[in-house]
Amino acid sequence: MEPKDCCAGGLRLDPAVREDARRRLLSVRGHVEGVLRMLAEDSVYCVDVLKQLKAVHGALDKVGVLVLRSHLTRHVVTAHERGDEARIVSELLEILKYR
Amino acid sequence: MEPKDCCAGGLRLDPAVREDARRRLLSVRGHVEGVLRMLAEDSVYCVDVLKQLKAVHGALDKVGVLVLRSHLTRHVVTAHERGDEARIVSELLEILKYR
Amino acid sequence: MEPKDCCAGGLRLDPAVREDARRRLLSVRGHVEGVLRMLAEDSVYCVDVLKQLKAVHGALDKVGVLVLRSHLTRHVVTAHERGDEARIVSELLEILKYR
Amino acid sequence: MEPKDCCAGGLRLDPAVREDARRRLLSVRGHVEGVLRMLAEDSVYCVDVLKQLKAVHGALDKVGVLVLRSHLTRHVVTAHERGDEARIVSELLEILKYR
Repeated sequence: MEPKDCCAGGLRLDPAVREDARRRLLSVRGHVEGVLRMLAEDSVYCVDVLKQLKAVHGALDKVGVLVLRSHLTRHVVTAHERGDEARIVSELLEILKYR
Repeated sequence: MEPKDCCAGGLRLDPAVREDARRRLLSVRGHVEGVLRMLAEDSVYCVDVLKQLKAVHGALDKVGVLVLRSHLTRHVVTAHERGDEARIVSELLEILKYR
Repeated sequence: MEPKDCCAGGLRLDPAVREDARRRLLSVRGHVEGVLRMLAEDSVYCVDVLKQLKAVHGALDKVGVLVLRSHLTRHVVTAHERGDEARIVSELLEILKYR
Repeated sequence: MEPKDCCAGGLRLDPAVREDARRRLLSVRGHVEGVLRMLAEDSVYCVDVLKQLKAVHGALDKVGVLVLRSHLTRHVVTAHERGDEARIVSELLEILKYR
C-alpha cells in the first residue's frame, strides 16, 4: 500500500536534485548568517549590506533554477501524458510571475 | 583615537534600521530553515519548494527596501553637500542593476 | 509543397494567441510613442518618464506571459511525447533566466 | 515671469539625457515593430517571440538606467539642499519596487 504519497499526484522532487538544492541552501543560510553578523556591527555601511543581500538573492535564485529545471524535465514535459497539464501550467505560471 | 570609523567616509547604517533589518533577516533565516526541512522529506513536490523560495525572495527583498530607504534618506540626498555624489550614485546604480 | 514548415520542428504559436499578442503589442508601441512624446518636451520630469517606462515593462510582460502560457500548454507539456524535451527545457530556462 | 516650469518643483530631465533616451527609445520602438512583424507570420515559434520580447525588456531597461542615473546625479543627491527629500525618496522607492 502506497502510504501517503502526498502532494500533487505523487510528483516528487528528484532525490539527487533535492540533495543538491539542500546543499546549496545550506550555503545560502550561511550567507544570511554572514549578513546577520554584518548587521551586528555598528559601523556597517548600507551599501555593503545591500551588496550582500543581492548576492544572497543570486544564490537563492540558483537553487530555484535547479529545482525548476528538474521540474520541467521530469514533470512538465510529461504532463500531457499524465493528463494533469492544466494544473501543471497554472502553477508554473503562478511561480514564474514576478520571480 | 578615532579608529578611522571604517568604511565609506564614516557613513553608517542607522542603528534602528540595522536592528529592524537584523530582526527581519532572522526571520528570513528561519524561512530558509523551513525550506531545508522540506528538502529533507523525500516526498516533497518541486512546486512547493519553488513557492517557498519565492516567498524567501520576497522577505529578503523587504530587508533590502528597508536598508535602501534608509540609505537614500540619510546618505544619498545629502551626497552633494558632502561632495561624494559620484561614488554614491555609481554604487547605487551597481546595486539596483538587476536587483 | 510544404516548405519545411520552418522553425523548431514545426511548432508554431497558436493563431489566436498570436493575434492577441499582436493586438497588445500594438498597444505597447502606442505606449512607447507616448513616452517619446514626453521626451520631446523640455520640461519633462525624470520620475514621470521612469513611471511610464515601468508601465511599458508591465505591458510588455503581459504579452510575454500570454505567449509563455500558450507555449507551455501546447508545446512544453507534450514535449516528452514528441521527444524534443531536452531542447524545449533548455530554451525555456534560457528565456526565464533573469526575465 | 516663470512661465509654467511645470512639474516637481521645476526639476527637469537633462536635455542631453533626454535626447539620448529619445534616440534609444526610437530603437526600442523599432524593435517592437520587428516583433509585430514576427507575429504577423503564421509559422512563428513561441520561443523566438519570447526571446525578442526579452531583448526589448533589456533595451527598455537601458533607457530607464540612463534616466535614473541622471535623476540621481542631478536631483536626488541635492534633495536635502532643496528640502524636498521626503518626496524624492518616496517616489524613487515607488519606481524601484519590482522594477
